[in-house]
Amino acid sequence: MTVEWIAVDWGTTNLRAFAMGRGGVVAQVMSDDGMGKLDKDGFEPALLRLIAPWLAEGRVTEVVACGMVGSRQGWHEAPYRAVPCAPLDPGSLVTAPTRDARIRVRLVPGLKQAQPADVMRGEETQIAGALALMPGFDGVICLPGTHSKWAHLSAGEVVSFQTYLTGEMFALLSQASVLRHGMQGEGWDEAAFDAGVSDALSRPERIGAKLFGIRAEGLISGLPVAAARARLSGLLIGMELAAARPYWLGQAVVIVGSEGISASYARALKALGVESRLVKGGDAVLAGLAVTRAKVNA
Amino acid sequence: MTVEWIAVDWGTTNLRAFAMGRGGVVAQVMSDDGMGKLDKDGFEPALLRLIAPWLAEGRVTEVVACGMVGSRQGWHEAPYRAVPCAPLDPGSLVTAPTRDARIRVRLVPGLKQAQPADVMRGEETQIAGALALMPGFDGVICLPGTHSKWAHLSAGEVVSFQTYLTGEMFALLSQASVLRHGMQGEGWDEAAFDAGVSDALSRPERIGAKLFGIRAEGLISGLPVAAARARLSGLLIGMELAAARPYWLGQAVVIVGSEGISASYARALKALGVESRLVKGGDAVLAGLAVTRAKVNA
Repeated sequence: MTVEWIAVDWGTTNLRAFAMGRGGVVAQVMSDDGMGKLDKDGFEPALLRLIAPWLAEGRVTEVVACGMVGSRQGWHEAPYRAVPCAPLDPGSLVTAPTRDARIRVRLVPGLKQAQPADVMRGEETQIAGALALMPGFDGVICLPGTHSKWAHLSAGEVVSFQTYLTGEMFALLSQASVLRHGMQGEGWDEAAFDAGVSDALSRPERIGAKLFGIRAEGLISGLPVAAARARLSGLLIGMELAAARPYWLGQAVVIVGSEGISASYARALKALGVESRLVKGGDAVLAGLAVTRAKVNA
Repeated sequence: MTVEWIAVDWGTTNLRAFAMGRGGVVAQVMSDDGMGKLDKDGFEPALLRLIAPWLAEGRVTEVVACGMVGSRQGWHEAPYRAVPCAPLDPGSLVTAPTRDARIRVRLVPGLKQAQPADVMRGEETQIAGALALMPGFDGVICLPGTHSKWAHLSAGEVVSFQTYLTGEMFALLSQASVLRHGMQGEGWDEAAFDAGVSDALSRPERIGAKLFGIRAEGLISGLPVAAARARLSGLLIGMELAAARPYWLGQAVVIVGSEGISASYARALKALGVESRLVKGGDAVLAGLAVTRAKVNA
């Protein structure tokens, strides 16, 4: 096995490393050593614990890492670049300080937008990857997740973007709020999801009144867990789509994310007459790191 | 000190007991033995730990308790009464099973509404208390808090009500979400609060896009903690007011709650041209328990 370089996706809660050979991924490992639980001195050991088997004495292996690892609280700060700009700029990568002579670690900077204020870290690499997978793409990319992003791309640049707390709100409300009582269990009710999306989009000013209703219906009329979870998801995604209307209206949308949540977004958009194309989030981040590395060495 | 009876406000997180004499409260105690941390057998001991000094051998002291203590997960279920109805019905109190012969404990039932589904427990007693303090009142009562309620009262009955997760969402977002990073500290920026309320009310469909902006402004332009906290509160209260518009539009509103949060609601309503009158939540619950006890014994 020849490891030419190592791609790293290092977020707040997880660390994923990919050994890259000539033809693509030859091995991958992950751990829960996310940025959130490490101090400055903890990053290099956490990385070496995963990738040591891929390193060789007397040779420097290149590591390219994106995500929160490059934030101020991360390994080393890779300052945000301001939009409008290309999602990637090989000249802006920042080299992290390392003690082990077998690695050279470069961190990908995130993007910032002055007005309305917004930031991303990690998604810029997925956007670059999606562009690499769809050369010449102009239009709108949606990246659902803990902090969903919508980005408008034109001529290879991120023109504007917007972040939503949708995934984090779903997690907090379904696990930590009073709504959690009716949400423990499995199952998914598509009709309840659709109704939630439709409710939120048709009367966004009423969303505040709809959330507690999930708990109340559980108490009064035994709303099933599958309907409760799906309706909450639909209301929150609908709330996001209501605000993101300037992004998706009259557009074809590319959704970059994991399969389950991407399918929910595609379904909600389809009900609004918006066609979407899916790109797996993992494919996009790898393609983005690969194109970054290629440009750095070009 | 003559303790004629004992008033108890027993919510999810706290237990408050008041020794009532001929002229009102003669002593009060509280603990964090809320419903949420007790099992069925834990309620009587938790209550006795607080009120034992007020009891006398050979005499039965009456205890009237409202709140989550009467829920299915509480001491004993006091089934919801359906609106429209008076906030109190002396005939519907449920006696909790007790071992100690010195007490007789009656639990106040909550209210339910079939459509839109909603429930309350504890607020019905505050509403009854507010009515006792303002005889003949017809109109709208707002009870801000973890789960804010708006109730429409007419001819002494609760006609309809609506619950919002506003307080719980503020707690979760400011303490457990990514927004917490810019919210640790003190201070309150009234202008940021006002702007948040106004933003949410004028464009409720954009609320989803406004929340993450608080974090982004913290990162990009150093938004102060006082402005971040106040703006989040303003956005969430504005989201509630947007949905509660049918309640407050063209009405005089009575706000029943603690002083700080009630003042925020009064300020937000005033900006909308709505006058409000404040009743302290503690006064309302005591007045409600007192009128309940008086009617039971009438």
